[in-house]
Amino acid sequence: MATLPKALLFDTFGTVVDWRGSIIREVRRVGREKGVRADWAAFADAWRAGYKPAMDRVRRGALPWQTIDQLHRMILNELLARFNLRLTEREKQDLNRAWHRLRPWPEALAGLRRLKRRYIIAPLSNGNMALLVDLAKSRALPWDCVLSAELFHHYKPDPETYTGAAALLGLKPRETMLVAAHKDDLAAARQCGLQTAFVRRPLEFGPQSAPDLTADRRFTLSADDFLDLARQLGV
Amino acid sequence: MATLPKALLFDTFGTVVDWRGSIIREVRRVGREKGVRADWAAFADAWRAGYKPAMDRVRRGALPWQTIDQLHRMILNELLARFNLRLTEREKQDLNRAWHRLRPWPEALAGLRRLKRRYIIAPLSNGNMALLVDLAKSRALPWDCVLSAELFHHYKPDPETYTGAAALLGLKPRETMLVAAHKDDLAAARQCGLQTAFVRRPLEFGPQSAPDLTADRRFTLSADDFLDLARQLGV
Repeated sequence: MATLPKALLFDTFGTVVDWRGSIIREVRRVGREKGVRADWAAFADAWRAGYKPAMDRVRRGALPWQTIDQLHRMILNELLARFNLRLTEREKQDLNRAWHRLRPWPEALAGLRRLKRRYIIAPLSNGNMALLVDLAKSRALPWDCVLSAELFHHYKPDPETYTGAAALLGLKPRETMLVAAHKDDLAAARQCGLQTAFVRRPLEFGPQSAPDLTADRRFTLSADDFLDLARQLGV
Repeated sequence: MATLPKALLFDTFGTVVDWRGSIIREVRRVGREKGVRADWAAFADAWRAGYKPAMDRVRRGALPWQTIDQLHRMILNELLARFNLRLTEREKQDLNRAWHRLRPWPEALAGLRRLKRRYIIAPLSNGNMALLVDLAKSRALPWDCVLSAELFHHYKPDPETYTGAAALLGLKPRETMLVAAHKDDLAAARQCGLQTAFVRRPLEFGPQSAPDLTADRRFTLSADDFLDLARQLGV
């Protein structure tokens, strides 16, 4: 590291919170209440899998700007039909808000608290502001501020998100560091001049998955979790 | 109150922090270092007085969008000449950042911590994001997120700021409450459908001033400080 960053920007789904475990728990509960049996892990995976294509339609301009809440809901409507799950409008809204209360990875909170002592910490997520604020509130995530793709009307990996976040903090891109479990996100941030920290989250896609966890020399550093990141960043 | 709000949005300069006392201390220190004697309270008052006309030029479109940091610096340049204070570029930058470390009113932190237990709390300030994030970081303000006029490229009292803040939180205007020591700010928020809390800050403009502190029936409630506000909001 040439110089330490001043602000750490955190990808959120998968990096800070375990979306898959959290969503499986929520849809399993709903299935039980409705007396429907199904592969709820497949439901969670399908919900997540629908998100990137939907977002890419917004990025290409095929859809007007829509929040992740709206995209999640669009995908949910299809999944409910496919899994034969009949919900009232109110129940659908509540299930869609499962993404507002995802559980952090076990060490994430302790790591964020340590990192906050020396650095500005903020999410930089494709999740909309309301989602991220609710998530922070329900899980006591100690952010200094909340930054969302919604503020730029551009989704990651569009460069406007990375350069926009640095600009809002009054910092040069190299004074900020993106922290993420996803190499495509980090590679795009690096192209914009940000420092980059790869954090391994081997269970993001479940125990059967085999994600690429190798250290990558393109990135400023690689860490096993947020506590390891804090150690490497001197706190 | 018909129904309690879900989020409290706080005007910041004067409502959360004592800008006048803080700025007087900073310019007095600089004056002492430079061996210049002057009425530093008058300096602080002139700095603040220049802010609204400068902002109004942006609001009318006479100036392109500029942050409060930029407007403060423009005013500071004139004041340094008027007060015969010669500073290096670095010293000017540091003095301009005095607004990033203003001191909260004595009970503000305790009040915010209490209010945060039940409500989403965020600044809604004309200060730019970097200023507000630095302020929160240096003074441990426990915001759930930071909202700034900069996000909307509109300054208060433009309606875009109040309705935009509610929308980013996924709330209806009436589900939010503006908390401010300034009746013009509250009146504009009320026009946009927000609930409103008037907080008395008798010393904002110094011990010689006589601000209008009367309760105003247009507003949802009036409070003596943030602890009184917390009590009235049931926390």
